[in-house]
Amino acid sequence: MKVLAPLLVVLALSVQRSCSAGDDLIYGYECQQSRCVKVELDAQNFQKAISLPVCRLFCGDGVPGTIWPRPSGLVNFDNYMLTVDPDNIQFILPTLSKQAHLWAASKERFMQMLYAGVPNKNILKKGGRPLIVTVELQSTLDDVVPKLTLDTDESYTLQISSSNNSAATATITASNYFGARHGLETLSQVLIYDDIRRELQILARADIDDRPAFKWRGLLLDTSRNFFSVKSIKRTLDAMAVVKLNTFHWHITDSHSFPLEVKSQPELYKLGAYSPRKVYSHEDIADIVEYGRVRGIRVMPEFDAPAHVGEGWQHKDMIACFNAQPWKNYCVEPPCGQFDPTVEDLYPILEDIYREMFELFDPDVFHMGGDEVSVDCWNSSKRIQDWMLQKGWGLKESDFIRLWGHFQTEALNRVDTVAHSQQPSITLWTSRLTDVPYIDDYLDKERYNIQIWTTGGDSKIKDILKRGYRIIISNYDALYFDCGGPGWVQGGNNWCSPYIGWQKVYDNDLDNIAGDYKSQVLGAEAAIWSEQIDEHTLDSRFWPRASALAERLWSNPKQSWRSAEARMLYHRQRLSELDIGAESMQPEWCLQNENQCPIDAYDRKF
Amino acid sequence: MKVLAPLLVVLALSVQRSCSAGDDLIYGYECQQSRCVKVELDAQNFQKAISLPVCRLFCGDGVPGTIWPRPSGLVNFDNYMLTVDPDNIQFILPTLSKQAHLWAASKERFMQMLYAGVPNKNILKKGGRPLIVTVELQSTLDDVVPKLTLDTDESYTLQISSSNNSAATATITASNYFGARHGLETLSQVLIYDDIRRELQILARADIDDRPAFKWRGLLLDTSRNFFSVKSIKRTLDAMAVVKLNTFHWHITDSHSFPLEVKSQPELYKLGAYSPRKVYSHEDIADIVEYGRVRGIRVMPEFDAPAHVGEGWQHKDMIACFNAQPWKNYCVEPPCGQFDPTVEDLYPILEDIYREMFELFDPDVFHMGGDEVSVDCWNSSKRIQDWMLQKGWGLKESDFIRLWGHFQTEALNRVDTVAHSQQPSITLWTSRLTDVPYIDDYLDKERYNIQIWTTGGDSKIKDILKRGYRIIISNYDALYFDCGGPGWVQGGNNWCSPYIGWQKVYDNDLDNIAGDYKSQVLGAEAAIWSEQIDEHTLDSRFWPRASALAERLWSNPKQSWRSAEARMLYHRQRLSELDIGAESMQPEWCLQNENQCPIDAYDRKF
Repeated sequence: MKVLAPLLVVLALSVQRSCSAGDDLIYGYECQQSRCVKVELDAQNFQKAISLPVCRLFCGDGVPGTIWPRPSGLVNFDNYMLTVDPDNIQFILPTLSKQAHLWAASKERFMQMLYAGVPNKNILKKGGRPLIVTVELQSTLDDVVPKLTLDTDESYTLQISSSNNSAATATITASNYFGARHGLETLSQVLIYDDIRRELQILARADIDDRPAFKWRGLLLDTSRNFFSVKSIKRTLDAMAVVKLNTFHWHITDSHSFPLEVKSQPELYKLGAYSPRKVYSHEDIADIVEYGRVRGIRVMPEFDAPAHVGEGWQHKDMIACFNAQPWKNYCVEPPCGQFDPTVEDLYPILEDIYREMFELFDPDVFHMGGDEVSVDCWNSSKRIQDWMLQKGWGLKESDFIRLWGHFQTEALNRVDTVAHSQQPSITLWTSRLTDVPYIDDYLDKERYNIQIWTTGGDSKIKDILKRGYRIIISNYDALYFDCGGPGWVQGGNNWCSPYIGWQKVYDNDLDNIAGDYKSQVLGAEAAIWSEQIDEHTLDSRFWPRASALAERLWSNPKQSWRSAEARMLYHRQRLSELDIGAESMQPEWCLQNENQCPIDAYDRKF
Repeated sequence: MKVLAPLLVVLALSVQRSCSAGDDLIYGYECQQSRCVKVELDAQNFQKAISLPVCRLFCGDGVPGTIWPRPSGLVNFDNYMLTVDPDNIQFILPTLSKQAHLWAASKERFMQMLYAGVPNKNILKKGGRPLIVTVELQSTLDDVVPKLTLDTDESYTLQISSSNNSAATATITASNYFGARHGLETLSQVLIYDDIRRELQILARADIDDRPAFKWRGLLLDTSRNFFSVKSIKRTLDAMAVVKLNTFHWHITDSHSFPLEVKSQPELYKLGAYSPRKVYSHEDIADIVEYGRVRGIRVMPEFDAPAHVGEGWQHKDMIACFNAQPWKNYCVEPPCGQFDPTVEDLYPILEDIYREMFELFDPDVFHMGGDEVSVDCWNSSKRIQDWMLQKGWGLKESDFIRLWGHFQTEALNRVDTVAHSQQPSITLWTSRLTDVPYIDDYLDKERYNIQIWTTGGDSKIKDILKRGYRIIISNYDALYFDCGGPGWVQGGNNWCSPYIGWQKVYDNDLDNIAGDYKSQVLGAEAAIWSEQIDEHTLDSRFWPRASALAERLWSNPKQSWRSAEARMLYHRQRLSELDIGAESMQPEWCLQNENQCPIDAYDRKF
């Protein structure tokens, strides 16, 4: 990172054009000792006072303070702004025909975001320099629709420059669409509305070299406990794109409802959906997958099995303990249900589901669930007991794990049947099956990634890592965003209460969790299990906490959340401008009075 | 309450007209042993299966299950529905000319709510009986704009009847607009869309006698820590009207920002607002007050003093410890600020503020705040110390309480100057000033109500009650709805964590809190202090928990939350239909499968 020249003087000079005040604006900002200080505008300071966003961009610790997540590579910029004419922004984009629709959509989105920060377009001043945005893809690429995989290089560079009175130029270089898209996102975060001068401003010169620390940067949404409209899912993808999260893990079905259209097995969603209006059609899903691709996001489906099934399957006679009561004897929450792995007719139906999922999602990694299997549920079925005894097995836990292993083997065969091109990478949740010794018996480490949902300090994580598995981290003590509400099967608070603050998310250091096995960590996901969440609270549950995760995964910061707090408050304001209903973290006073709110503000800053 | 006849048979007969199925509907409901059971629709059961709302209306414990809050008086109804023609609803309303605008607005609102439950108007069947809604006010009233006060009788009766093939009639009687309005609200909750028959249905006969247990049923919103748009405040009033809450306690200003237009002291809001767009103009306030009146809600302003002031006052030289650091030495959260009661020029400014507030709000009760005064703040001012010493006082805590008493006396005089008609009732928060012995010295029990914000079990409550004060209960351990988020001045969780579930709100029994002094309890308020809440999370923080409070205050139920749980899930769904972003409490599965989710469901029900 470069050391900044003393800011205040340079900024004073940087306001080049004549100013006419917002006639009702009262406050501006000055950069003092790396902090933006609110000042009353008057005749004296009017020329040098700047808006909050412009001040935050410059005034900090060597990286533009408006960029979230913080770039991980070299950043070098001049603290000098140019006015840009928003009517005169030209894009020079790659011309591969199979990507044309992606670039068109990205450009449209860029322009929408540009105006989102302008409260009133009518008072925007005319004029300013043209801006030419050039995207260059370095490697020779086949002309195909790009697909994000674990091998995708998401790095990019962004250079902004200008010579006297000519157009400003922003040049993004990357290997592929996904990296370049990230560059465009960063660019949009240094192109800022100044409410004092009523104009759009851009850094006059910047060099940014940026790449993610982790490959897998995800959010999980459960659309079975409660339904979420396509619109609300797209809003989530919009916000993910802003912070460069790249994986939408879609836990579509569960025992509560089956909102997925499966054309070859229509009974599943007809009986299984909460209502005929609460079904994701093939058209909806194709729309969401494509919406994600434009935003650099893989939409990865999960079909959770053999537990977490129920509604939709009721007439098929292949579910054990279906809606059994008292539920607490057979599952962790109502309604209960587990596949009966002994029913041969089950597997062709699974194949139908997998086939349609692979056609729709074309996933590079497929999630097969595998959590919270209840031995008591299976053991309540005479048919299952008979089948096991007939094979000469016992009815001990290890025998039921063997039954589970049987199911997993059969199910995986069906996945491989439909995933024509190659054997896809499979993810499973931590469970009894991933405990020692079962994990060695049933799960091939070349095939399976393990998604951790125990606490970050659980010794089981090391057991899994030392065997060579790659992992995705969703430790519930930091990344389950549904924690902290009221109880719902009883009073009090829900099981993983209290609420997890963004600070804890930010400080959830994957390197600490993995110890000597860092290289096996693909990344992490924050999860919304939706028992007590629907689209009214979707945004505020994810945001801004998912942004804290995004910076952890992109930048892997050494410092703790306190160093990021002021930037985070600014970023959350930006999400709000973009119509993301992010939760407020602090009084607006704390945004306007940088670093005055912390309990140790005085000790640190005065 | 009347004992219901066996429901199933009667319901079967009650479907009088020919049915054409929703071609994609899969499920209907049957009432079995006072529980609505989901059934697959088929040729056999199609004639008798009913929709979830119709089932919930009938099938329960003797009160229509769709009404929230539960009526407190006698309820008697036939489990028989009639189809209503929504194009043929006639209103016969009181003709007092000063009320005409209120009735017009109420009627419009009634019709909007009627259609809110209909997902698709185009498939609504034509026909049905006319409905005649008659409102009769019993007492002879002057033709004045009605005003809600502590003496207002909010009771009403609602009678629904019909003779063969004639119009259905709904007759509401009440003493005044406010009672009658409640009746209309109840009526709208028994006029229901049936998605199987695609028609609106009403109870064929009902007699409901209803009145609130408590006079003061409120929500508090703090618009200073974060700003809330007029639109979002109106949405809160909309939802309050649904559940018959009657007081919107508006904590407008605080040390963080001053978003209130005061025409005679414009510097206050010009300097004090977060931005020129974040000010409530006189026009906005008049609009909100009238919007509340239509909905039976008093909009009561609070001007919190002598602490909780700051931004806006910075040039007036009458604030002690303004934005002082380290803030923890001078106040409970940043930014600090307290009036300097020794400055004579302060009081005329207070009079200006009070005058405009009384003109705008015309409050029957005025809230003067009075919480969290810091002795250390005042004691940090040489000017204050000198003034006190000059009077021969010391600088002990009791001397500063005397200073506070001086402020309160002076401020009250200014209130009485502007409240022309009479000396209004004043509310103050519990504080050191309301502790023994100071309360006896400084606060006249004929003038002051005390708003409790300590825990419900705090012995101070009894100290206050036994002296004869009337109280409003906002015990933070049940009624502070901002509890449970992350910390904001430091990590971890906020001070009153964990999150308070609706169950705790429902079971917060005011009679238990008041013991022998029940008659002195005016009611209660739930509070949103907005440090970490803005309009994105306003709805989900208030709702449905404010509904739990509403039933506590209206019906004062003997049973605990479990008895209300199924009705609550239905009610929350209704709020959602009315565009209130109420938080989800449980998977939709639990709404559709009544009483199957509780952990003791089996023990209780099977």
